[in-house]
Amino acid sequence: MNTNLPIGVFDSGLGGLTVLKALQKKLPNESFIYIGDTAHVPYGNKSKSSIIHYSTTLSTFLINTYNVKMIIVACNTASAIAIKALQSLFPVPILDVINPMTKLLSKHKTLQRIGIIGTHNTIQSQSYNKLLLKINPTLQISSQACPLFVPIIEEGLENHTIAKLMIHEYLSPLIRNDIEALILGCTHYPILKKTINSLIPKEIDIVDSSNILSSYAKQYLNQQKLINNSSNVTTQLLVTDASSHFNQFASKILDNNFCGISTIQPF
Amino acid sequence: MNTNLPIGVFDSGLGGLTVLKALQKKLPNESFIYIGDTAHVPYGNKSKSSIIHYSTTLSTFLINTYNVKMIIVACNTASAIAIKALQSLFPVPILDVINPMTKLLSKHKTLQRIGIIGTHNTIQSQSYNKLLLKINPTLQISSQACPLFVPIIEEGLENHTIAKLMIHEYLSPLIRNDIEALILGCTHYPILKKTINSLIPKEIDIVDSSNILSSYAKQYLNQQKLINNSSNVTTQLLVTDASSHFNQFASKILDNNFCGISTIQPF
Repeated sequence: MNTNLPIGVFDSGLGGLTVLKALQKKLPNESFIYIGDTAHVPYGNKSKSSIIHYSTTLSTFLINTYNVKMIIVACNTASAIAIKALQSLFPVPILDVINPMTKLLSKHKTLQRIGIIGTHNTIQSQSYNKLLLKINPTLQISSQACPLFVPIIEEGLENHTIAKLMIHEYLSPLIRNDIEALILGCTHYPILKKTINSLIPKEIDIVDSSNILSSYAKQYLNQQKLINNSSNVTTQLLVTDASSHFNQFASKILDNNFCGISTIQPF
Repeated sequence: MNTNLPIGVFDSGLGGLTVLKALQKKLPNESFIYIGDTAHVPYGNKSKSSIIHYSTTLSTFLINTYNVKMIIVACNTASAIAIKALQSLFPVPILDVINPMTKLLSKHKTLQRIGIIGTHNTIQSQSYNKLLLKINPTLQISSQACPLFVPIIEEGLENHTIAKLMIHEYLSPLIRNDIEALILGCTHYPILKKTINSLIPKEIDIVDSSNILSSYAKQYLNQQKLINNSSNVTTQLLVTDASSHFNQFASKILDNNFCGISTIQPF
């Protein structure tokens, strides 16, 4: 395979840009094509069959139009619901944001009580629970759906009293369970990290999956001899529905480190 | 035209069920086909061209599949953005939730200061402002986008502290402007009406467009001799993506006064 080909990344909207940012940092000599499915955001309240349909269509588009060498599902909901279908359908490697989290337990072998937050769909799927309990069956997991976090972040209210109130509401049961680490199981949530950090006990580690995923992706590309070492790389952003909010957020979070934003119609 | 044909109603999701309920009450001898576009909810943050595309596709489906005698756009965002395109494209009468609001000013001739709340798209479109100022150019209008109200309602948190905090945040500037009436410019908002009522001065009239629209629809059907007087009427609900939340909400708000919920794929 031509190692100069780009890596495809997709998410339901702008949350996955936090993953893209981590990937750009860890893999500065790779090209990326990112799709935000802004026509269907949020995925958290959509049906499983629709999430599989959206994920399959976006992956087909990335392969047929951009000949991507790998796909990264930068959305926890799509990772929880669609990853097996995608891996069985397409010939390129497909990584998700949930499976690399096993690395966390290899690193922190003494971890006994862990909290997981995400959308309704991610939490209901129990994807994190099943994965982590396979590695450590005695792990105590407290999980909590936080459906208002995405709209709060999408509205830029991450430092507002409303964000603090909802963090208190959603996280109090987990703190009462004396968790040692908190997994941010939604790619939007790193944007709330600072506010969460200021409101929970300092001993709780906040785990942002984008860092773990980007290290895993680098290791995987190395193992498979798929690393691109070109200095002539680009990041291109695509959306399924034009959104000035997406554009503003992308400029801010990626420090304008991309060559353009286009609207596509893969559906 | 066969007056026994059903009336088509569509909305981005479940908010329009408040309009359907008012229509059922005012027009108990009519059949209704309601589509909730749950695959694309919310419309408030989608592009104008997508909203026109969704509205056109749903209207085409209602006409081709159910031969509806009239269409009611039970969504303020679609009413604000797509109504002219729809009325120019289709042969059946198409009513929206915004235009009947002129009735309000005919009724309350002394009204001088009015507040309007809605989604980003509805407020940015200035549809209410343009319409009301045509009738009373000296009207003072204070408008405010309330983007978190829909997710709060969709999560069933309409009586929660978070709802009260956001009502205070969004409505304080309007109250400072001494408004005499507040238009709920989104079909979700009537679900928050009780909580809003408890937090704003008692002198402010809360205007729910579903009542005004349903009276207007009845009057229109009478004028056009399109009234159905059958006792054998049904209401059928359709969604573009299966949603247990929609089903629960429909049962609750319509008191189970419908014959079924099916998933359709008009896109």
